[in-house]
Amino acid sequence: MSPKLTGEILRQLRQAMRNCKYFSEPIQAYIIPSGDAHQSEYIAPCDCRREYISGFNGSAGTAIVTEQHAAMWTDGRYFLQANQQMDNNWTLMKMGLKETPSQEDWLISVLPENSKVGVDPWIIAADQWKNMSKALISAGHCLVAVQHNLIDVVWPDRPERPSTQLRTLGLEYTGTSWQDKVTMLRAKMTERKIGWFVATALDEIAWLFNLRGADIEYNPVFFAYAIVGMNTIRLFVDLKRLSHPVLRDHLQLDAPIKPELSIQTFPYESVYTELQAICAALGPKDKVWICDKASCALTQVIPKAHRTPIPYTPLCLAKAVKNATEIQGMKMAHIKDAVALCELFAWLEKEIPKSTVTEISAADKAEELRSQQKDFVGLSFPTISSVGPNGAIIHYRPLPETNRTLTLNEVYLIDSGAQYVDGTTDVTRTVHFGTPTAFEKECFTYVLKGHIAVSAAVFPNGTKGHLLDSFARAALWESGLDYLHGTGHGVGCFLNVHEGPCGISYKTFADEPLEAGMIVSDEPGYYEDGSFGIRLENVVLVIPTKPKYNYRNRGSLTFEPLTLVPIQVKMMNTELLTKKERDWVNDYHRKCREVVGAELERQGRKEALEWLIRETQPIV
Amino acid sequence: MSPKLTGEILRQLRQAMRNCKYFSEPIQAYIIPSGDAHQSEYIAPCDCRREYISGFNGSAGTAIVTEQHAAMWTDGRYFLQANQQMDNNWTLMKMGLKETPSQEDWLISVLPENSKVGVDPWIIAADQWKNMSKALISAGHCLVAVQHNLIDVVWPDRPERPSTQLRTLGLEYTGTSWQDKVTMLRAKMTERKIGWFVATALDEIAWLFNLRGADIEYNPVFFAYAIVGMNTIRLFVDLKRLSHPVLRDHLQLDAPIKPELSIQTFPYESVYTELQAICAALGPKDKVWICDKASCALTQVIPKAHRTPIPYTPLCLAKAVKNATEIQGMKMAHIKDAVALCELFAWLEKEIPKSTVTEISAADKAEELRSQQKDFVGLSFPTISSVGPNGAIIHYRPLPETNRTLTLNEVYLIDSGAQYVDGTTDVTRTVHFGTPTAFEKECFTYVLKGHIAVSAAVFPNGTKGHLLDSFARAALWESGLDYLHGTGHGVGCFLNVHEGPCGISYKTFADEPLEAGMIVSDEPGYYEDGSFGIRLENVVLVIPTKPKYNYRNRGSLTFEPLTLVPIQVKMMNTELLTKKERDWVNDYHRKCREVVGAELERQGRKEALEWLIRETQPIV
Repeated sequence: MSPKLTGEILRQLRQAMRNCKYFSEPIQAYIIPSGDAHQSEYIAPCDCRREYISGFNGSAGTAIVTEQHAAMWTDGRYFLQANQQMDNNWTLMKMGLKETPSQEDWLISVLPENSKVGVDPWIIAADQWKNMSKALISAGHCLVAVQHNLIDVVWPDRPERPSTQLRTLGLEYTGTSWQDKVTMLRAKMTERKIGWFVATALDEIAWLFNLRGADIEYNPVFFAYAIVGMNTIRLFVDLKRLSHPVLRDHLQLDAPIKPELSIQTFPYESVYTELQAICAALGPKDKVWICDKASCALTQVIPKAHRTPIPYTPLCLAKAVKNATEIQGMKMAHIKDAVALCELFAWLEKEIPKSTVTEISAADKAEELRSQQKDFVGLSFPTISSVGPNGAIIHYRPLPETNRTLTLNEVYLIDSGAQYVDGTTDVTRTVHFGTPTAFEKECFTYVLKGHIAVSAAVFPNGTKGHLLDSFARAALWESGLDYLHGTGHGVGCFLNVHEGPCGISYKTFADEPLEAGMIVSDEPGYYEDGSFGIRLENVVLVIPTKPKYNYRNRGSLTFEPLTLVPIQVKMMNTELLTKKERDWVNDYHRKCREVVGAELERQGRKEALEWLIRETQPIV
Repeated sequence: MSPKLTGEILRQLRQAMRNCKYFSEPIQAYIIPSGDAHQSEYIAPCDCRREYISGFNGSAGTAIVTEQHAAMWTDGRYFLQANQQMDNNWTLMKMGLKETPSQEDWLISVLPENSKVGVDPWIIAADQWKNMSKALISAGHCLVAVQHNLIDVVWPDRPERPSTQLRTLGLEYTGTSWQDKVTMLRAKMTERKIGWFVATALDEIAWLFNLRGADIEYNPVFFAYAIVGMNTIRLFVDLKRLSHPVLRDHLQLDAPIKPELSIQTFPYESVYTELQAICAALGPKDKVWICDKASCALTQVIPKAHRTPIPYTPLCLAKAVKNATEIQGMKMAHIKDAVALCELFAWLEKEIPKSTVTEISAADKAEELRSQQKDFVGLSFPTISSVGPNGAIIHYRPLPETNRTLTLNEVYLIDSGAQYVDGTTDVTRTVHFGTPTAFEKECFTYVLKGHIAVSAAVFPNGTKGHLLDSFARAALWESGLDYLHGTGHGVGCFLNVHEGPCGISYKTFADEPLEAGMIVSDEPGYYEDGSFGIRLENVVLVIPTKPKYNYRNRGSLTFEPLTLVPIQVKMMNTELLTKKERDWVNDYHRKCREVVGAELERQGRKEALEWLIRETQPIV
């Protein structure tokens, strides 16, 4: 991997910062965040501006360029990669180390007095703008919005914004029409006396209109905005995409049944001027809802007196609670996914002794097997396929230069998932094809105990996910071990594999309480640097449960695993398991055998069925 | 309990609000918070202004008086009591109910346009002022600081501010001289480039100077402020208190050894003008530390550009980590306290069959027995002594009209503690003197399992207390039960029985990580309304431990119980306990027998010793 040479584009960028063509005065520093205008986790090639200017393509990082310096802030996952990808025009700012200054402190230390710091207001979130602006002002500088993105100025062959074909989802997949979703949204708005709602997150817009796209790899979303009032619905999207009769019919564009459910369509870019027009006509008490993570540009269109920023939108909350149809779809998707993984593991067992399988070819095989399943659309994230020491790199993705061969001597970790039209999957299994060491088994068993502790937990209605995080760690902690990531994230239904507002992590506190119908992952791990990685991940559904008592009629919840892939018994030290834990493993394996076995039989996949039966023998 | 008649004092208060003698314009509403100028949890009689104006004497509540209305906000613990204590001039605002407006919303709904809302800036915290002021401004009103407290104006026989004798604590109790504490504080200030620190919390000031008072019941503190600069120390206190030679010597008032450790003393009231003088002389980059919970009055003396508000002061953090001398003192205090409680329980067993013991007389007996122990100073909080259904009232305090007799038929819960010169105690035991029901035993056992889960937890250095809270609930949750309070609070060393910044609660997130030397309570419970209450509370010390592995050299922590009072085996359903839990109980009881038994023997308290030996038989 040789670094990108950035001398010439930095020279051009600095010229653009100086020459007053894009802002009325010269600017002394320019901030290039990672995201797009929708604060997406995964972004399209046209939005990879930070990568273009620096060469660094990790998923997290912020670049700042001044007349003299170019600096990149990123976290521990990417120190090595950033160093390899960036040339010596760049200084790496290692976040999380004590000696590393914050972006604000660094700017204040290098800027001449009374400086202007520019940023594209579309790709900085409103809450980030606020913090940065406050810090700069207190030091006599000023954060300014540069409407024309200066990276685009120096990026001659920047890709077009994708505009893939839209797919409509009928009631058999969504369970709720977009009309009913709009009506539910308006009921929430009425309850809180809100006149307008601005939707900016791509998965929320896709969910609201029961549409999917393919604009961003792994995420079935499309670039759009929506503004919903009590009587109007405005959808902002590349209008070419709406020409197909099926789509026009789905959205009732030509013959709306009710006037308040008629959708007005506008070009994607006109959201700014339309929102301005709406705001100009607001009454003195009218309020507009917008997520506090929406772009600064769009947020600031709404006059402060009318703006009601919220940490999670009503769409985000409604989307998180899956209805019966979505739950059924997710279950089907997980059965198909389990079929593909059973086949993969059966195939690996046969092929590995020939020493021909690598991390990359195993990942490719997994994708091939998934693609044979009905309604497969694509992967839901880049497959983490890792052998031995590579397994200890939590966000590992095999590359030709790191690719290891699967053998009988090392632990293999595969974290993968797919998008099917009926649901999204995300599953991690850790296996050994030879004989694991006692230490590997011990660690695996602690991780398994943590996984079971969360999966089998019973907790009152209203409990927030972060309160369950320590259950996943207790067995590891007792032996002095731990893992440095959260335990679970929300999962969309044929939508983003990571979604809010619920999760299981020690890091958050302002998460929303878990409720029946929510779907999260349960994925504790253990990583022995330079040696191996272990992670056990199921996607689980929050379900009501009825324990012996019912304190204050609050009701109780627990989890039902949707993922149905055997957990390798060979990796367990069963002596470390309690009776309750052994029963859990046996119940889980019985269910895998029944449900996935029936589907394997139906699909006539004999070898995988034999593997499944072998791997689901009860332990004693 | 008949309500206080408040018609006349409300009339006088409204006159004072109108007549421009205390503020330049008439004010339309006046807020009366609960606290004192130091935001103390317990307050002195002279600061019970909210009680004086309303009659309501619960520990939490805020009164607001307008020309037309008088309203009291309090929480669910006090709905009944407030209703009984207030006459019909007052409207009770039940906090936590959906239909109850916030103070801000209510004010906005009742005030005429452009109103002035007054408050004494000394008894409202800076962060509360900020929130209230913002809300009022956004509705066209204004929050104004009325320097002269208007309740004091209408309170002719208001008690004097207490000025009790000060007690000096030598190194044999504190382990660290006040001079060294000042030096450590200054090192923290240098590290963060802070020039001045303003101490306003009474326990922090007592801790810093190794002094104790008795100005507030249960809390060995005294009214004072302190301001520490890099070369000066200013102490603000009723100067009469400093006349005794022992005190003058302790503080080196007459012959300071080093100039930078010389204490300048000022009258308590002059803190405002002195802080003004200090701030007037600040250089452009000088920063002043003050807790964001300090009074608005004192906070606003510091110009915003110089003010660095902090959620926890360096004194609060340093005080929480006990040194070896303090730990030794706390251990001694807990042994003495256990002696008193063993005697109490032995006495109760004998007396209860006579039907002569009540909640109040049992509490009095506990105090009497404690007072026989060396260096006893007083109770550390009002004893909760509760029988049967009274036990389900979490903050119960026996009164003549609620006083129940202890019998062989009901569960008895006693939560009590004392101040000794060497340490502070806080212990809860729940016992049955006859035969508990199967349900009582079942609930007790779940609570015990939760208590053990926290007490025996092993967790990495850097773990925050709130991450352990769910361990205390897991067994209750599994059966559909729970308790609606936190699991633990910090405990001072011959200081406040509740102290920050650490604790074990689902309610906080911004708590500081636990570290070796911190002392907290571990007190899960279960409350069956109308029937019984169960709580099991030990004070526990955070200690380092060495499990099998040491992931990333972070080190691990666990707890050592300081409280050594047997847990009643009769209340346990031992079949519900795991082997590990039974071992914990037996180990704990062995330690009680060894340590407290030796002291009982030394003190010649035979009956209590026999009781202890009986109650610490191993379970199988």
